[in-house]
Amino acid sequence: MYAQIVQFARSLRQLDHCLDKAIAYATSRKFDVNVLAGSRLAPDQYELARQVQSACDSAKLAAARLSGKDVPKHPDNEKTIEELKARIASVLRILDGFGEADFVGSDDRPVRMSWLPGKVLRGRDYLVEFAAPNFFFHVTMAYAILRHNGVELGKLDYIGPLTTREA
Amino acid sequence: MYAQIVQFARSLRQLDHCLDKAIAYATSRKFDVNVLAGSRLAPDQYELARQVQSACDSAKLAAARLSGKDVPKHPDNEKTIEELKARIASVLRILDGFGEADFVGSDDRPVRMSWLPGKVLRGRDYLVEFAAPNFFFHVTMAYAILRHNGVELGKLDYIGPLTTREA
Repeated sequence: MYAQIVQFARSLRQLDHCLDKAIAYATSRKFDVNVLAGSRLAPDQYELARQVQSACDSAKLAAARLSGKDVPKHPDNEKTIEELKARIASVLRILDGFGEADFVGSDDRPVRMSWLPGKVLRGRDYLVEFAAPNFFFHVTMAYAILRHNGVELGKLDYIGPLTTREA
Repeated sequence: MYAQIVQFARSLRQLDHCLDKAIAYATSRKFDVNVLAGSRLAPDQYELARQVQSACDSAKLAAARLSGKDVPKHPDNEKTIEELKARIASVLRILDGFGEADFVGSDDRPVRMSWLPGKVLRGRDYLVEFAAPNFFFHVTMAYAILRHNGVELGKLDYIGPLTTREA
């Protein structure tokens, strides 16, 4: 469980890095980078800002629901790329406050979803079936919106450095 | 480990379901659905066919590398949506052949990546840091390409049914 929360933080750092690349691209092409915050791939899809907010919430709520600890609410009022970077930084500070011990017993902790009244998921099922796929969905969609708009991103910008050792 | 491999199979079934929706959309709009197989969000990005192939390989190779078992190669020659659906079905049959016992000791099994010569990853680090984010990246990108082209998809088409119990 905790390893997955640590990975969410790693992936949010890569998302922040992708936003930095968007800023550099906008500067080089002389357009307002905040145009990208409102960009989307389909008219009835979340725009970039809401994809980043959703990724942040997915990670934060997973840590909260699996540990049983409360986390601060975020009002989802970010409109600029700098505000989205601040949102990521805020959630990273929250995630960094969790440790392995917070997730003891979380495999079987019951998790409720607002859209599944009267039902609960086992903690592990919630993480594997919903929280992780949902988190990576929003991070990838943010990446896809930037990529579609010309920001120079490759897969390694999304994956980031890996924990290796000598063979 | 095994729970994650099971989730990869679940997500591939949802991807197959998204391709079914693409077929229905093409039929209703009277265009050749296989145009979508070559669609992409940026000119230097993998097209839909290769996103599906990459998702399939990511799941199959994770099962192989973590279990130490050999898996059949796929030649990546799919050009049509029906061929992509057959590729998914083939990989699902392979994944269904794995069981919990295949992954005993996989946390510490050394995994080599062709692009990291002289290095190994611990099995668990490989799964959490690379295999899972990479798998969901390609599934989401396939979804994004379909969504961008007008296929009527919602997040639940990606997430699929969850394992719940009475509260």
